Amino acid sequence: MEAKIEFIASGSITSPQGFHAGATYAGINKKAKYGLDLGILFSEAPCVATALFTNNRIKAAPVVLCQQRLQAGRALAVVVNSGCANACTGEQGLADAAEMAELAADGIGISPEDVLVASTGVIGLPLPMKAIRAGIDQIALSIDGGHELARAMMTTDTLPKEAAVAVRIGDSKFIIGGVAKGSGMIHPDLATLLCLLTTDAAVDIDFLKLALREAVALSFNMISIDGDTSPNDMVLIMANGLVGNEVILQDTSQTSAFQQALDQVCIYLAKCIARDGEGASKLIGVTVSGAPSVAEARLAARTVVSSPLVKAAIHGSNPNWGRIMAAVGRCGVEIVESKIDLYIGQVCLVRSGKPLPFSKRSLVEVLSRSEVPISLQLNLGTATATAWGCDLSEEYVTINSQYTT
Amino acid sequence: MEAKIEFIASGSITSPQGFHAGATYAGINKKAKYGLDLGILFSEAPCVATALFTNNRIKAAPVVLCQQRLQAGRALAVVVNSGCANACTGEQGLADAAEMAELAADGIGISPEDVLVASTGVIGLPLPMKAIRAGIDQIALSIDGGHELARAMMTTDTLPKEAAVAVRIGDSKFIIGGVAKGSGMIHPDLATLLCLLTTDAAVDIDFLKLALREAVALSFNMISIDGDTSPNDMVLIMANGLVGNEVILQDTSQTSAFQQALDQVCIYLAKCIARDGEGASKLIGVTVSGAPSVAEARLAARTVVSSPLVKAAIHGSNPNWGRIMAAVGRCGVEIVESKIDLYIGQVCLVRSGKPLPFSKRSLVEVLSRSEVPISLQLNLGTATATAWGCDLSEEYVTINSQYTT
Repeated sequence: MEAKIEFIASGSITSPQGFHAGATYAGINKKAKYGLDLGILFSEAPCVATALFTNNRIKAAPVVLCQQRLQAGRALAVVVNSGCANACTGEQGLADAAEMAELAADGIGISPEDVLVASTGVIGLPLPMKAIRAGIDQIALSIDGGHELARAMMTTDTLPKEAAVAVRIGDSKFIIGGVAKGSGMIHPDLATLLCLLTTDAAVDIDFLKLALREAVALSFNMISIDGDTSPNDMVLIMANGLVGNEVILQDTSQTSAFQQALDQVCIYLAKCIARDGEGASKLIGVTVSGAPSVAEARLAARTVVSSPLVKAAIHGSNPNWGRIMAAVGRCGVEIVESKIDLYIGQVCLVRSGKPLPFSKRSLVEVLSRSEVPISLQLNLGTATATAWGCDLSEEYVTINSQYTT
Repeated sequence: MEAKIEFIASGSITSPQGFHAGATYAGINKKAKYGLDLGILFSEAPCVATALFTNNRIKAAPVVLCQQRLQAGRALAVVVNSGCANACTGEQGLADAAEMAELAADGIGISPEDVLVASTGVIGLPLPMKAIRAGIDQIALSIDGGHELARAMMTTDTLPKEAAVAVRIGDSKFIIGGVAKGSGMIHPDLATLLCLLTTDAAVDIDFLKLALREAVALSFNMISIDGDTSPNDMVLIMANGLVGNEVILQDTSQTSAFQQALDQVCIYLAKCIARDGEGASKLIGVTVSGAPSVAEARLAARTVVSSPLVKAAIHGSNPNWGRIMAAVGRCGVEIVESKIDLYIGQVCLVRSGKPLPFSKRSLVEVLSRSEVPISLQLNLGTATATAWGCDLSEEYVTINSQYTT
């Protein structure tokens, strides 16, 4: 069955039916750009829910809490703060995360066990529980509140990152919404600090787990900002089934439409994170084709987009293409130099491993745009992948040498 | 037998007997800081020689040439240039490297097969052979010429990097000299662009291979500047045996002295490279102890010293120690958060995984020094390793966004 997938103007995580959100300023994040640092997402109907978490061995307290609570595969709400990561905070951190869930649960009038917690910000500081206790009561939930929550999650992000797509398939219609934050400590190993996804479709929990893993493989695991990963990384999806569709399983008529729509939301949000990387002025897209396998295509694309030297050269619109070859050469894929073709935009720089004469002016023009597409054809097989990242600027260093406890 | 190992004041690769070197300005490297860009190292007596090369799948022409010639395990001379890497240059690059060796051989009066080639600089440009043909005749070799060669190898290095140690053991005495260059595209996978080592000891080629591999594991494979690696990386050692010692084999009385001395020269040069990383103002040393194995200790130490966020925080003398925990958490070693102790200098920040109160003033004072020692005790085993790197500054980005073809 043919599906129609369309982005919704000003879409957010409260675009799907039955999701409410809101935020306030509790005083946790002194640098909150929109004056918001504490928010809640709530579904009026029970959700099946699943998440992917950081692979970092240092896990923030809210990650530990969510991993325990999501074993049941369901959730009703998430409480989120910026300004403090509640990571490396020991037993007290776990107690604080649990209390934060309890405070949110009391306000909404649900069981604490149905509330998840997400935190982002400085590592190693205790959560300012007094501020959270006072702030949480101020949060008013509404069906337009997704935009507020998107802003309350921001740390060094310069822009909120949210989207929603409407999916029509036959007589059925459902929506998937999402919100994410960057914008440093980002590398392909679940490369986001936080992403919340919502849908009003009814989805089987086992399929939902597979679908989320697949969407993340194409999106959050294909972006890099700086090669670091965070103890707080989490991508969560909640499905409340309010549209009353037949439950989407692994092989039903709506399976592929749901997967495509979820992929699109995740790729859109991942690109937002890459574009808004700390200090970034350009989005870099690296497409590797002709790889022996998808895993190798992904590895090669991620390696090039993560190279500090490639990133710095693009920042300066510097036609130093040799760094792209050096980066793909060290990626671990058994590439063959004499088979490689390299393009930046439409400019072919290398064909069958040989450098071609090129117009420096044309290349500098391509490198000066806000989106720089790099294409590597390995000519070894048929697999393709794209990774996204950003340029490396002096401002990245300034932000991160001053970001302070 | 007890050995005495001492660094020689103003030591160089021509400190060991019978090694001669010299350099000139051929016009290859327009930015040559000391007005030198082409040099030769020559041993008056036949050498056994071995090298370790880049693991990058893109290999510069001189690397391909050296790999072929060193199969015989011997060499008499090396010709080196900066300003052009002769990488990604196809068949022409191989022909140019061979001609460069031939020109040097003709000047010295030896067979081209006994001459090795090393190049460093911009990738993807052909070697300016006209300049090299004219320049190579200008090189005058001398026993003090090591210092000139050290300068001719420099690209973005701000300082030449050279050393020599004298080893006395019983009645025997020999010298090991070395020269290296950085200072970007440096990561632990043979982390140097070029390193040449010389000794007047007689050394068995099989032991020499093992000894070089061991010394590199402790030195050039334990430094990181930016996570990139180069198609030109090479660490070469030449031993001419002129002191007339009994040939050092794997289990002779001088074996351990030779290994220790070689380790010391390589660690010294590796630290010089880390300290002089592009844009660097500080040397960072990360020691991981209590690891289950040496391989894991090395991995953890390298991961922390390579973290852009740790490097940027140290640049700003910013007491954001949580980033060190986040970096060790993602290193791949099965660490246990509740067992970790973390020190920066003498300041203990984490004990058994719990953050301790600390004097911010004391910590900022330690972070402001030119050498910042970080110590992580994993409390999982007995293995230890140290890695070195540098801070990440705005200037690193400026250098690399403008370094131009």
